[in-house]
Amino acid sequence: MPQTIERKALEDLQEDLHAVQELLRRHRLVEGLVQRQKMARHELVEQLVHKQHFVELGKKLEAMHPADVAFILEALPLPDRLVVWELVRAERDGEILLEVSDAVRESLIRSMDSQELLAATEGLDADEIADLAPDLPEEVIEGVFRSLPVAEREQLRAAMSYAEDSVGALMDFEEISVREDVTLEVVTRYLRRFEELPDHTDQVFVVDREEQLRGVLPISKLIVTDLEALVRGVMLTDYVTLYPDDKAQDAAQAFERYDLVSAAVVAPNGKLIGRVTVNAVVDFIRARSEAQQLAKGGLRETEDVFASVWQSVRNRWSWLAINMVTAFIASRVIGAFEGSIEKLVALAALMPIVAGIGGNSGNQTITMIVRALALGQVDEGQAKQLLRKELAVAVTNGLIWGGVLGVVAYWLYDSVSLGVVMTAAMSLNLLLAAMLGVGIPILMMRLGRDPALGSSVMITAFTDSGGFLIFLGLATLFLL
Amino acid sequence: MPQTIERKALEDLQEDLHAVQELLRRHRLVEGLVQRQKMARHELVEQLVHKQHFVELGKKLEAMHPADVAFILEALPLPDRLVVWELVRAERDGEILLEVSDAVRESLIRSMDSQELLAATEGLDADEIADLAPDLPEEVIEGVFRSLPVAEREQLRAAMSYAEDSVGALMDFEEISVREDVTLEVVTRYLRRFEELPDHTDQVFVVDREEQLRGVLPISKLIVTDLEALVRGVMLTDYVTLYPDDKAQDAAQAFERYDLVSAAVVAPNGKLIGRVTVNAVVDFIRARSEAQQLAKGGLRETEDVFASVWQSVRNRWSWLAINMVTAFIASRVIGAFEGSIEKLVALAALMPIVAGIGGNSGNQTITMIVRALALGQVDEGQAKQLLRKELAVAVTNGLIWGGVLGVVAYWLYDSVSLGVVMTAAMSLNLLLAAMLGVGIPILMMRLGRDPALGSSVMITAFTDSGGFLIFLGLATLFLL
Repeated sequence: MPQTIERKALEDLQEDLHAVQELLRRHRLVEGLVQRQKMARHELVEQLVHKQHFVELGKKLEAMHPADVAFILEALPLPDRLVVWELVRAERDGEILLEVSDAVRESLIRSMDSQELLAATEGLDADEIADLAPDLPEEVIEGVFRSLPVAEREQLRAAMSYAEDSVGALMDFEEISVREDVTLEVVTRYLRRFEELPDHTDQVFVVDREEQLRGVLPISKLIVTDLEALVRGVMLTDYVTLYPDDKAQDAAQAFERYDLVSAAVVAPNGKLIGRVTVNAVVDFIRARSEAQQLAKGGLRETEDVFASVWQSVRNRWSWLAINMVTAFIASRVIGAFEGSIEKLVALAALMPIVAGIGGNSGNQTITMIVRALALGQVDEGQAKQLLRKELAVAVTNGLIWGGVLGVVAYWLYDSVSLGVVMTAAMSLNLLLAAMLGVGIPILMMRLGRDPALGSSVMITAFTDSGGFLIFLGLATLFLL
Repeated sequence: MPQTIERKALEDLQEDLHAVQELLRRHRLVEGLVQRQKMARHELVEQLVHKQHFVELGKKLEAMHPADVAFILEALPLPDRLVVWELVRAERDGEILLEVSDAVRESLIRSMDSQELLAATEGLDADEIADLAPDLPEEVIEGVFRSLPVAEREQLRAAMSYAEDSVGALMDFEEISVREDVTLEVVTRYLRRFEELPDHTDQVFVVDREEQLRGVLPISKLIVTDLEALVRGVMLTDYVTLYPDDKAQDAAQAFERYDLVSAAVVAPNGKLIGRVTVNAVVDFIRARSEAQQLAKGGLRETEDVFASVWQSVRNRWSWLAINMVTAFIASRVIGAFEGSIEKLVALAALMPIVAGIGGNSGNQTITMIVRALALGQVDEGQAKQLLRKELAVAVTNGLIWGGVLGVVAYWLYDSVSLGVVMTAAMSLNLLLAAMLGVGIPILMMRLGRDPALGSSVMITAFTDSGGFLIFLGLATLFLL
C-alpha cells in the first residue's frame, strides 16, 4: 500500500464518513431533481454539479487507506455503498475487499463481474487471494490460477488447503531468508536490494542449503552488531517454530506470551515455508472474539447493519428455532404439573425464579471453565477437583440465595413448607447447574468442539427444564 | 529478558506443567513421610530426595520464559503455587508478576513482604511498575518512588495518572528519537551504541529541538536506503499520532486497521512523550474481550480457578443478586395474574416461552448494535433507521415464530383464541425487545458507559417481566 496515505484517528475517520454521506446526499438530491425534471432546462447545470460531487468524492477516496475505505463502505447502506464502490480505483479493489467484513464483502462481490474480480486479485499475494477465495465464484478462481506464475500457483494451492483456524491460514510467504555462513555485511547488502522490506520484517530467517531453518536474525541485532560478524555467530537458535497444521489459537497465544512480531512456519520436515506476522494474529484474535460474541448472542455471522430485513431474519432464525425447541420442552415439563399448579397457583409465580437463577449460576461456572480450558491450564485430570469446588459454591449459593427466596416465599404466601421447598429446589438446581457447567465444556472439548460456542444455550436449556421439574416435582411430593 | 530462554508451543508448555506437578507431588509425598515418621531414622535420606526435587524444579523454572512461569503458577493450586513462587529467582519476580492474571497476582503479592516487593520492581520500567501499582501496598509504592532517578520518577507519576482504558496506560517510554538534519549514517552509528534495541522498535521518531514530533523513520527504510541521505528526505510524515488521553480502544482499532507495530504518543502540545507497541495492544484486546465475556457470564473479575469457595461466592454474588431482583419482579408480575392462571392453567405452561424468546431476540439485536457502535460505524443519527429495520425484523419473526407457537398452543389446548393470544403476545414482546435492543445500547453510550457491559442483563429483565405482562394481560382481557 502506498505510504503517502494518511492514517487517521477514529474521530477523523468518522468525519470523513460524514463528509461522504453529505456528498452522497447531495448526489441523490441532484439525481432526484434531474429525474423529476426529465433532463429538462437545467440539465447541463445539474449534470455539472452532479459530476463535481463525484470528482470530490473520488479524490477523497483516493487519499484514503484501504482499511478506511472499507470502514466507509461498511457504514453505508447498500445503494450508497455501491456508488462509492464504483468510484474506487479498480487496482485497489483487492486490498479493500480484504479489509471489509464478510457480509459486506459478499455484497460488493455480487456487484462485480468475473473480469473485475479477476483484475481485483492481480495486486494481491497468494495468501491474500486465499483469504478471498471462499467468496469468489469457481470460474474466477480458475482464472486466477491460470494467471499466476508457477511458484505462486503452488503457494496459493497450499494456502487454500489449510483449515480456517490453522496456522496455515494466517501464514504469508514474504519471509526473507539468508545463509548462516555469510557476514552481516553480506546480509545488509542483500537487504538493500529490496526496494522496501516486507511489512513486519523484524527478523530474517537463517536456512541451510536444504532450506532447513537453522536460526533467526533479528533486524535489531543486525543493526547494532559489527558487520564483519558471521550470521552463525549472531543468530538466535531459540525461537518459536509454528507448523502449518497447528491451531491458530495456540499460535496466537504464543505471540501473546512472547510478544512476537513474526514467527517462522516450517513444514514437518523442517523446511521453512512461510511466516506468521502479528497483524494476522491481531485480526485472528479479533475475529475469534467476535465470533464468540456473535455465537453467544445467537447470530450466525457478522450482520451487515444495513442488511435487508429478510437477510437478518435468515441470519437469526436458527438460534430462535433452537430456543423455541428448548422453551417448548420446558413448557411441556410445566404442562405435566398443571394439576399441581391448579391446586397451588403460587407455584406458577415462583417457578421462573428457580429456573432463571439456575441458568445464571450455570453460566458463571461455564464462563470460568471455558476460559481455563482455552488457556490450556486445566485438563480433564483436574475435572474432579473443579467439580468438587463448583458443587461447594453451588451449595453455598443455594443455601444463601435459596434461603432468602424461601423467606420471601414464606412472607408472600404465608407457608413455611412452600419456603422450604423453594430453598431445596434452588439448591438442587444450582447443584445441577454446577455439574453441567463443569461437564458440558469438558464433554464438548472431548468431542473436539469449541466449548466457547453453544455451551451457554445447552446449560440454559437444562437448568430451565430441570428447574421447573425440580421445583414443581418437590412441590407435588411435599405440598399437595 | 534473556534471549537464551526457549519459547514453546502450548503442548510443550503443558508437558512442563505436568513435570512440575509431578515434582510437587513427589515433594509432598516425601514431606508427608518425613512428618509421619517425625524426622526419624530415614531423615537424612528423605531430606536428600526432597532437596533433589527442589533443585530439579528450580533448574526447570530457571530455563523458562517469565510468561511460561506465569502460566505454570496460574495452573497450580495455591499451596503448590507458593512453593514454586519461592523457588523463582528473586530478580525475575517483577517480570513474572506482570504476566500473571489479576487474581493470581494478588495471591502472590500477599505472600511477599515489602522488602521483597520493592526488590521485585527493581528491574522494571516505569510503565511496568505503573501496571503493578494498583496491587502494591502504599508503603511499597512510596519506597519505589524514593528509589527511582528523577526522570523515571516523573515517568512513573505520569504513567500512574492515566485512566485504565486510555492510551497512556498502554504507553511505554522506550522510544528512540533522532533529529531530521542528520544523515542515516549518523542514525545508524547512534543505534549501534545500544547494546540491543528496545523490543518492537520498527521505527525511530524524528523530533526537533523542542522535542516536537516531525516524522518517523522506519527501520526497514533505514536498512534499504543510501546512508548518505538525510533523515528529512527519508522520513515519513504521515503516521498515526496518539494522545495519552485517547481511548485505548480507538488506538487498538488504529493498530488493527493500519497493521502497526508501534505508534508515537505525543502530548497535546505536540511533544513526543512515549510510544505504544503492538504487544501492549494485543494484551489490551485480549483483556477487553475477556472482561466482556466475564461480564456477560456474570463474573466480576477473572477468577483464579483454584480460588477458595468463599472467594468464588464473593466474585459471583453481585450478578446473582441482580438477577434475583429482576426474577423477583417478574415473579410479582405473574403473581398479579394468579387469578387468571387459576382459571386457565395453560397460561402457566405457555408464558415462559413468550418471555424466553423475547429475551433471545433482544439479545440478538443488542449484539449487533453494540458491535456497530464499538466500530464507530453507526451513530445516533442512524438510530431511527436501525430501529425501523429491527422493528420490521421483529414483526416478521413475531408472525413466523409466534404463528408456529399459536398453532402449537391451539393443538395442545384445543383453543383458537389461546393460539391467537399466543401469536399476538409473541409479536408484541419481540417488538418490545427490538425497541429496547436498539434503545438500551444507545442510551448507555449517551450516558458515557460501555454498552457491551450490562446491556444483556437489562434487556432480559425487561423482556421477562414484559413478556409475562403482555401474555397474561392479553389472556386476561380476551380469554377470561
